This record gives sequence, C-alpha cells and structure tokens, in this order.
Amino acid sequence: MTEHLPGAAGQSMSAEIAAQPEVLAASALRHSEIAEVARVVSARRPRFALLAARGSSDHAATYAKYLIEVLLQLPAGLVSPSATTLYGARPDLSDVLVISVSQSGGSPDLVEVTEVARGQGALTVAVTNTPDSPLNAVAELAVDIGAGPEVAVAATKTYTATLLSLYLLIDAVRGGKAEAVRDIGALAASALDDTEEQVAESVRRLRFVERVLTTGRGYSSASASEAALKLAETSYLAARAYSGADLLHGPVAAVDEETAVLAVTSKGNGGAAMVDVVKAVRERGADVLAVGSAAGEMDASSRLMLPDSSEEVAPILEILPLQRLALGLALARGGDPDNPRGLRKVTKTR
Amino acid sequence: MTEHLPGAAGQSMSAEIAAQPEVLAASALRHSEIAEVARVVSARRPRFALLAARGSSDHAATYAKYLIEVLLQLPAGLVSPSATTLYGARPDLSDVLVISVSQSGGSPDLVEVTEVARGQGALTVAVTNTPDSPLNAVAELAVDIGAGPEVAVAATKTYTATLLSLYLLIDAVRGGKAEAVRDIGALAASALDDTEEQVAESVRRLRFVERVLTTGRGYSSASASEAALKLAETSYLAARAYSGADLLHGPVAAVDEETAVLAVTSKGNGGAAMVDVVKAVRERGADVLAVGSAAGEMDASSRLMLPDSSEEVAPILEILPLQRLALGLALARGGDPDNPRGLRKVTKTR
Repeated sequence: MTEHLPGAAGQSMSAEIAAQPEVLAASALRHSEIAEVARVVSARRPRFALLAARGSSDHAATYAKYLIEVLLQLPAGLVSPSATTLYGARPDLSDVLVISVSQSGGSPDLVEVTEVARGQGALTVAVTNTPDSPLNAVAELAVDIGAGPEVAVAATKTYTATLLSLYLLIDAVRGGKAEAVRDIGALAASALDDTEEQVAESVRRLRFVERVLTTGRGYSSASASEAALKLAETSYLAARAYSGADLLHGPVAAVDEETAVLAVTSKGNGGAAMVDVVKAVRERGADVLAVGSAAGEMDASSRLMLPDSSEEVAPILEILPLQRLALGLALARGGDPDNPRGLRKVTKTR
Repeated sequence: MTEHLPGAAGQSMSAEIAAQPEVLAASALRHSEIAEVARVVSARRPRFALLAARGSSDHAATYAKYLIEVLLQLPAGLVSPSATTLYGARPDLSDVLVISVSQSGGSPDLVEVTEVARGQGALTVAVTNTPDSPLNAVAELAVDIGAGPEVAVAATKTYTATLLSLYLLIDAVRGGKAEAVRDIGALAASALDDTEEQVAESVRRLRFVERVLTTGRGYSSASASEAALKLAETSYLAARAYSGADLLHGPVAAVDEETAVLAVTSKGNGGAAMVDVVKAVRERGADVLAVGSAAGEMDASSRLMLPDSSEEVAPILEILPLQRLALGLALARGGDPDNPRGLRKVTKTR
C-alpha cells in the first residue's frame, strides 16, 4: 500500500478525493449494520463517553464528541493516550463507552489504550477501515468504515467515511434513522463539483502564502483542525487551527495583512457564532476564505459555497473542497502530496 | 488594569515573569486552604472529571487532566463550551466533577457552562484569580489562584499560579501533602536565573524565525501549547503546538531547515518519549531548542536546562524561560508585549 505508484504527482490523492461521493453514498446504506452495534451500546446505557484517536482520526473524534454531547446528552472527553501508555493510569471505566478511531487500526498506543479500557470495564468500540486490525481484535464491538484501500498518505476518503460512520453510530444510539445523511452522496458530489473553479482560483490566490490559520466553531471546529493538518502534510504549511472562540482569546494578535484565514462556516449555531470571528480577522487585514453553506453570510474576501445540510453532518461536506485546496496548493508549490517527505501511511507511536 | 503604564515596552510582562518565584512560594503555603475544598471533593467521590477553560487556562486544564487521570485514576475530559452554549446540551452530570479555570472568572461562556453543569448535578469548582468573579458566584466551591493583579495582557504569573493551584487541589484530593512543590519557589527562581543567558542567546538565534513548532508529551504537552500561545500573542508568530506523538503522524512533513522546534523535555516518562521526536525533527534539518531537566539527553541544537523536579510539577518550571523567550523575541522584533495589537485582558466569548 505504500509503494510508489506510476503516474502524475498527487494522482492518488486526487482520485481518492473524487471517490468520496460514491464511498459516502455506499456507507450511508450500511446504517442497519451499524445499528446492530448501536443497539448493544444503548442497552448498556453508558454514562460517559471517551474517544481515543491520533492524527486525522483525532479530528473525527472531536466531531463525534459534539455529536455525543448534543445528540446523546452524554458528557464526553478525548483520551490522552499518554496517561495510559506512559503513566500507567488504570481508572475505573464501568459505565464508560470508549470509541477508538483509527483508519489502520494498527497504532500500538490506541491498541493498548483500548485493551486497558476494556479490562477496566469500559464498553469498547473500534471504528476502523481495517476489519482484521489489532484494534478490532482487542475491542468488544467494531464499526467498519468501509472506505476501501487508501493509497495516498494524506487521509481523505477515510476521513469523511469515518465522520459518516460515527454519525451513523451515534444517530442510531439515539434511535435515529440516518435521515440527515440520506442524500450524503449527492451532497458530497455537489460540494466537490460546485466549488471546483473556486478552489482553483483560491490556489492561485494562496500559492505564495506563508501564514495560514483555520477556524471554526462547534461541529465545524473538527473541519478547521483537519484542514490545517492537510495543509501541513501536503503543502508543508505550518497552518494552525483555532476554535473561533479561542482565536479571539490571544492568537488573533498574530493575524495581519500577510495572514490567510480559512473560516469554516455552515448554516446553524456554529456558523452564526463565526460572524464576529470573521469580522475580527478581516479588521486586522487578513485574507479570509469562508467555506460552507453560511459562507455567503460572512464578510469574507472569497468563498467556497457548499450545499445546505443539517449542521451536524456539515463537517462531512466542509472538508471536501479544503482537501482539494491542500492538493492544489501542494502541486502549485512543487510538492507531491502522494509522497510527502518523511511520512508513512501508518505511524506507530507508543 | 488595561491602561497603558509609563515605562519601557514589555516592562509589566517582564516584572510579572520575575515575580513568579515569590508568587509560587506564597501559593504553596496555601495548601491547607485548598485542602478544605479537596475534602469536599473527596467526600462526593466523583466518578468523572470535566475541565472548562479558554486560552492559557485551557492549557492549565490540559495539565490538570493528566493529573486527574494519573494521580486520581479518574477518567477526565475537556469541556467543549459550545456544546452547552451554542447547542444547548444538558447532560446528566451527577457524579461528575466540573473544574472551571479562568484567571478573570468573567468569561460568559464559562459562567454559563458552570451554571448549567451545577444545575445538571455536577460538583462545580471555580479556579480563578478573582474571588468576587461571576464564575465564583455560580460555582459551588472555589479555589483562589492568589497571583495578585496581572497587568500585562499575556498571562504569565497567573498561568503558573493556576498550574500550582490545580496541582495542590488534585494532590490534596488523593490525600497528598504537597511534597512535590515544597521548594517550588526556589526551583522557579533557579529556572529563571540559570537560563537567563541562554534565553538571551536563543532570542538572538531565533530573532528572524518565521516557522516555529512547539512540542511535548504527557504533562509537558501543556507547556508546548502555552509556549505557542505566548509566541503568537506577543511576537505574532503563528507558532503551532503538537503533542510529540501527533507530530510524527503528519505535521512532521512541514518541518525543514527553516523550522525552529521548541521541544519541552523534562525527566520522566514524557521526556523519555521525546527522544525519538527530537531525533525525527533534527533529521529534517530543524533548529531544535530543548527546554527542561531532560534537555541534556536530547540531540538538540541548543538547550535551556532546568532544575530537576517531580515530572508532574515540571510544567510549572518549563514555561518560565519560554515566557522570557517570548518577551525577548517580541522586543527584538519591535513589539510591545504589554500592549499586543488587538488584544484585551479579558475576552468575552459566548
């Protein structure tokens, strides 16, 4: 899976970005399979949820944390794997749901965290794209992301398929019928097709940028974090993601005329709370690219308009044109996003 | 508190950095007062902890999350205030300890989160530097940081005093006697005095840097995040913090000969896990400044050596020379860290 494929730079990443509407449409049909897992979760009546993940999957976990807090009304947190793997923490986890998210299912620290959590009484669920992975072997329950093999080092289709799988799982736990993602394939196709020209224009505009901040609030904060990671991985930009609220607490001082801000703004309460954030960075002279179904309501320099959706599934769409932007910037700057310097597909940290 | 004081640029920040040994020594003596709060917490036997904070206090909360997980063996998470304030989440929080951390105690979103949490059955503790604040008014229990008034916009003495207060609280909940911080004032004085020359040399070395990453693992990841925020607030550097583990998952691709990496490495399991991280960024040509009591064990370009301490209180020391570095870089680059463009001391987000 990591061998160099023949063909143009970025070909794999480009193909995997384009495959997402089809992958998502197929995944949405698997909601009854995921509902089986959800039934076990509901029956155990967890009182608290923890999410364990690294890298892109950590952003999917951030998204799931909001879903759990808002849709299930359960307190939730993100696991610090080091507490278990470096410091040997062994808390009582009865009544706790632990969801471990990993494309490969092969990260030793997540396997250890999940194994320890199960031993401490947690109900453990592995969400992976690799059903025969070590993570699946140690978790009690498993959800298959079903995105198919991913060749490019930068995760794209596995990221959105992970968001969708987590949505389907959490929606099913509350007894939902996956209504908000019924047309997710068509929405994703529209999100990619409708923005193609604007993304190309944004690549031209941002080609020489050195300072990029990404920002979003609520559900969309996951999209801001994932966009910053895509830019760092492929275009080697030290992009920094901030929640819109945290940005105004200090980092806004670093925003000036040489800063590009990618503001993720979908219709709903999160997007509405971004109006003041966009205003503040624009007042400081930043070039603001607003991305999402609420981009038209922002005082932005340019926009990537996305189709309307329920706010809680908007992150599945928001990242799509931003993946293309990262790819386009990487190519414009002479890189090969399929083979970023110094990265492997699976990173093994302990 | 926000009026411009007469005197040289950075004078307030410089004085507040220098005051920390005295502030910390005085705070450490207040452990019996904090132990009163700890007794109530212990008696309620919480099963889960949540921390609510923004900005610098959010990094103090990250530190406290490790303390709670490792020293109290309780699962813990960071609150996403938006889940409550934007989406109206109202989870059942009986058996949950909610610690809200805010220098000013005036952030409306934290006040709302704390009030809602108390109404949902949580045991709420406000940790603030302002005993008559709105946050104190809504929380059931309160811990006074006791750092005295802070004039500079960039938090310094309130940050370390917050770390110490959180340590004292959590140590007392487990029945500890604050042994690890008995000499914290002297250790802080040594951390500042012993590194003064090296910090000045680092300022000269990094004066023209444009790309800075900060990194640490375990307890020290809080110091990496706080250092990145100080640089962004005062030197307007878009510094980015990564846990050492996450850095190897993708962002390492953005590291090259033009990158400065501030690696926080104290003796203990967190620092030991940083050896490979420092090696990886050095192999990519980065200039690595290692900071901490384990800096001598790292393959770094230069070092800020700190005195030995228990690993769990090292973050109180690690940030001290990094505050001075941020101040020095701000001055060298022509800024006034006491009056960063576009920042106020208290940020009100909802």
